[in-house]
Amino acid sequence: MSKTVELAEKLSKLDYSHMYNSDFYWTWDKTDDELASVFAVADALRDLRERNKSTKIFDSGLGISIFRDNSTRTRFSFASACNLLGLEVQDLDEKKSQIAHGETVRETANMVSFMADVIGIRDDMFIGEGHKYQKTFMDAVTKGHNDGILEQKPTLVNLQCDVDHPTQCMADMASIIHYFGGVENLRGKKVAMTWAYSPSYGKPLSVPQGVIGLFTRFGMDVVLAHPEGYDVMSDVEDIAGKNAAASGGSFAKVNSMEEAFENADIVYPKSWAPFAAMEKRTRLYQAGDKDGIDALEKELLANNAKYKNWSCTEEMMARTRGGKALYMHCLPADITGLSCREGEVDNSVFDRYIDPLYKEASFKPYIIAAMIFLAKVKDPAAALRTLDASAGPRIAF
Amino acid sequence: MSKTVELAEKLSKLDYSHMYNSDFYWTWDKTDDELASVFAVADALRDLRERNKSTKIFDSGLGISIFRDNSTRTRFSFASACNLLGLEVQDLDEKKSQIAHGETVRETANMVSFMADVIGIRDDMFIGEGHKYQKTFMDAVTKGHNDGILEQKPTLVNLQCDVDHPTQCMADMASIIHYFGGVENLRGKKVAMTWAYSPSYGKPLSVPQGVIGLFTRFGMDVVLAHPEGYDVMSDVEDIAGKNAAASGGSFAKVNSMEEAFENADIVYPKSWAPFAAMEKRTRLYQAGDKDGIDALEKELLANNAKYKNWSCTEEMMARTRGGKALYMHCLPADITGLSCREGEVDNSVFDRYIDPLYKEASFKPYIIAAMIFLAKVKDPAAALRTLDASAGPRIAF
Amino acid sequence: MSKTVELAEKLSKLDYSHMYNSDFYWTWDKTDDELASVFAVADALRDLRERNKSTKIFDSGLGISIFRDNSTRTRFSFASACNLLGLEVQDLDEKKSQIAHGETVRETANMVSFMADVIGIRDDMFIGEGHKYQKTFMDAVTKGHNDGILEQKPTLVNLQCDVDHPTQCMADMASIIHYFGGVENLRGKKVAMTWAYSPSYGKPLSVPQGVIGLFTRFGMDVVLAHPEGYDVMSDVEDIAGKNAAASGGSFAKVNSMEEAFENADIVYPKSWAPFAAMEKRTRLYQAGDKDGIDALEKELLANNAKYKNWSCTEEMMARTRGGKALYMHCLPADITGLSCREGEVDNSVFDRYIDPLYKEASFKPYIIAAMIFLAKVKDPAAALRTLDASAGPRIAF
Repeated sequence: MSKTVELAEKLSKLDYSHMYNSDFYWTWDKTDDELASVFAVADALRDLRERNKSTKIFDSGLGISIFRDNSTRTRFSFASACNLLGLEVQDLDEKKSQIAHGETVRETANMVSFMADVIGIRDDMFIGEGHKYQKTFMDAVTKGHNDGILEQKPTLVNLQCDVDHPTQCMADMASIIHYFGGVENLRGKKVAMTWAYSPSYGKPLSVPQGVIGLFTRFGMDVVLAHPEGYDVMSDVEDIAGKNAAASGGSFAKVNSMEEAFENADIVYPKSWAPFAAMEKRTRLYQAGDKDGIDALEKELLANNAKYKNWSCTEEMMARTRGGKALYMHCLPADITGLSCREGEVDNSVFDRYIDPLYKEASFKPYIIAAMIFLAKVKDPAAALRTLDASAGPRIAF
Repeated sequence: MSKTVELAEKLSKLDYSHMYNSDFYWTWDKTDDELASVFAVADALRDLRERNKSTKIFDSGLGISIFRDNSTRTRFSFASACNLLGLEVQDLDEKKSQIAHGETVRETANMVSFMADVIGIRDDMFIGEGHKYQKTFMDAVTKGHNDGILEQKPTLVNLQCDVDHPTQCMADMASIIHYFGGVENLRGKKVAMTWAYSPSYGKPLSVPQGVIGLFTRFGMDVVLAHPEGYDVMSDVEDIAGKNAAASGGSFAKVNSMEEAFENADIVYPKSWAPFAAMEKRTRLYQAGDKDGIDALEKELLANNAKYKNWSCTEEMMARTRGGKALYMHCLPADITGLSCREGEVDNSVFDRYIDPLYKEASFKPYIIAAMIFLAKVKDPAAALRTLDASAGPRIAF
Repeated sequence: MSKTVELAEKLSKLDYSHMYNSDFYWTWDKTDDELASVFAVADALRDLRERNKSTKIFDSGLGISIFRDNSTRTRFSFASACNLLGLEVQDLDEKKSQIAHGETVRETANMVSFMADVIGIRDDMFIGEGHKYQKTFMDAVTKGHNDGILEQKPTLVNLQCDVDHPTQCMADMASIIHYFGGVENLRGKKVAMTWAYSPSYGKPLSVPQGVIGLFTRFGMDVVLAHPEGYDVMSDVEDIAGKNAAASGGSFAKVNSMEEAFENADIVYPKSWAPFAAMEKRTRLYQAGDKDGIDALEKELLANNAKYKNWSCTEEMMARTRGGKALYMHCLPADITGLSCREGEVDNSVFDRYIDPLYKEASFKPYIIAAMIFLAKVKDPAAALRTLDASAGPRIAF
């Protein structure tokens, strides 16, 4: 029995019925079964590709990408996922379009979606705005579909908003599951999601929020560590707490990187901006207050500089379980002595983990493809079995 | 009998023989049968897609898009049409290319067309130049094909020039035909194609010209209304007059929006620039006269401001037949109180017509696909029957 | 027997075994058999397309393009080649990506390549850097594949580096072979690869270098001519000398355009920058010395202006064999009286050779496709026979 057929067996025991035609905003909208379904389909699609079996379930159709912030990794992951399933990517580049000329989101959403099966949106820059934009967009196309304007309802893949970064965190989790040899081995593992110093300013909060919102569901002991003032959204902290209680793990907050790293099995040191400061920045941008933005940036950089000792050094790594915690990062990292003078991680640490880091990233295209697959295929378990049995080759000769 | 087979029947009674390998510049180049063929194929392609049947007639091949002006709707419509038929879009972005370095159009046209089945060009900014560019481009690739340089002659889809906007106006007409329940119901309907105030300057004339050039062919009473001085090309007015005479309808010009709206069944209020001013602007650009351009812009904006009462208000709509004329627009509209302080249309009017407006736009991808289909498929009626009988699914599971 | 089957026969007698999974940096890395294989496969793919046979050997997969310099021709040739084989192009636009934010090439290379079958890179601006970038990129993905991060090793197609421009020069050679009716007819032909005046500055050296490195392998008498100081890389001159000796041709350098053109069968007059000056420019850019760069540019333009008589005029062409040498250019050319006041070639000469020039360019998509085909297909001769016998149509109806 092939791995894909095994995974189809596993899948058929899960309840994924509500994923059909649904959107993927946040992992905490989804049930445990639904997340397990995404992992199973992702692994199956990878297995099929490794055995040179085509997984093009679409003969035509578009995947629309909207990047309201720069991206290399996620852009190529989305393009890879769409291509793997047979969709062609069309990027809605707001500079090329007429959006700046006063178009409403509702109108644009419908105008670009006549043949769109998938919408991938990154909008992570402004607290309180990213999720709202995605929701407005998807409400518009759902209404458009219900009113007979769009022949199909495209499905949303949240490619990062101000609240969650589900394709990243699900790829992170897929990579941990494989690293530790199965989801059953995660129970009791200690995870340190910690802030780290970076010479840049205003990095999104969606990764730390996504990690605590997701990792707490697997019976692990998740510690969130940051200097005072660098809080993330309290709503997500509440979710993390509830998840931990339900899964038999724990969620704790500390103000010391050392404490978080102590005996950790997994460390995820990464810079982010304080939630309150990001809220303030959004208001300044809305008011067009350039001087205020500049002043805020200076203030934040000065504040960051107080915490240069929050860095994933060799000494810090030595505190982890056997000195061998799995080092994780969503990339790109600010690497001390390589990409900057003082940053999130020592080059020697980063370099030792290149392989697991790149493998971590390699799950993202499959996670995205699995999200699309589950939203578009009515009986995904049967579809995987059919692909396993009779799909043509990806490369013909 | 499926709708597609019915449409294939209808199609086989029309003479579309000259469309094979031809280009689509202006609707008035085409016979009534040819336009009817486009509508029939568009409807059939839509029916096939709605029934999840693949219409990929190309296994490989490129659709080249050239946008010499901004575009969202037409860009995505072209991409959707190409994808529906199996072509991959490649955008010739003049900023990324070496065109600025003194390349001639003839050379570029051949260099990008080695594997191009379709060329879509928007060039609407400069009166006297847009059509010329398209013609020069297509003459070059036709010669290239005849000389054995290009293995296929790509077909042109005019995505808007200075004279006509055929994919827009054909989509508008397809939407009217469906709205009124058949082309036979259009006879005697009154259409008001009217100028409307906008705070912006220099909008293309191709939509009003395209509308009067096309709508006069269906036995309707078409009224063109604009303030004094906002004339469109007189050549197109002559065509509209001849079309009206031949179709048993009428074509009239008035200088009052109220008069045009009186008992109208369809209203299309939209801003455009005066033809004579656009001719002048083209000459100023050619001469590189920046001061002249700025002066002209100021003059035109001041002149526009005299006609703020040319707006599609509720009061204006009340004058139409039963107060219920179909409101049309190519989008995006300048909406009073939404996208600008004073514009082409009241928000309450616009909002009431959102559904028909979006449906109007939804025909464009199919109209473009139909134009390509008829230029590339020798026996389109037979091809539609074959697709209906034996096409694979668009989504596999 | 079809042309494709004939070419498959020919191919099966050549040793192309080392091309499987290999990269294409420079023509002089490849054996004569390997180059002959590229020409054979290119001709076969063209024959198949002309007979409407699909050559999509990939059902999904990406071709990544990286253009670190402007490009129209090569961009569309690469896109056409990928499309012909079934790959979707994704452009890594460094302005859209986070590369500027300190990412290392190693990381980016892996992050964009999870589903990449082909990498096409143009990096020709800086002497000593272009090839290095390509090598670093490919070393990274090769390691990534060996370490289990990438499921496939993508293959490199060098779309122009600082040393060679193999897709251009192989297309040039394919065109010569067809023009003279077979590779066996090239022996003893005289080729003049000469510098020519252009009003612009700093054109890459990769074309003259690529031409002398490749054309010397066919028993031809290759003459490189340029004004004093406009030397190309001496390493490549050495290669040209060795190639000529091995093939029974000759390689000579002269400082007179007239002498080079004397009785030439083929002339390739083209501007380039002096190697030593380009080395200096690279160092100035690395040091961020803007004033130095400006001064160098002025100096080079002034120096160029001394050699305005190095131009492919009618008088110069009259010196060639029977006045009828084949005029070649990689395009776009600086054409006297058309694209500039004084340039590389007279308009009357250029215009007379439009057909062979465009045909020359038309080989590039097929050359690129053949390079990919030979790197990705284990038994290309068998694959061509199968395609000839049973490939579906490219256009269905």
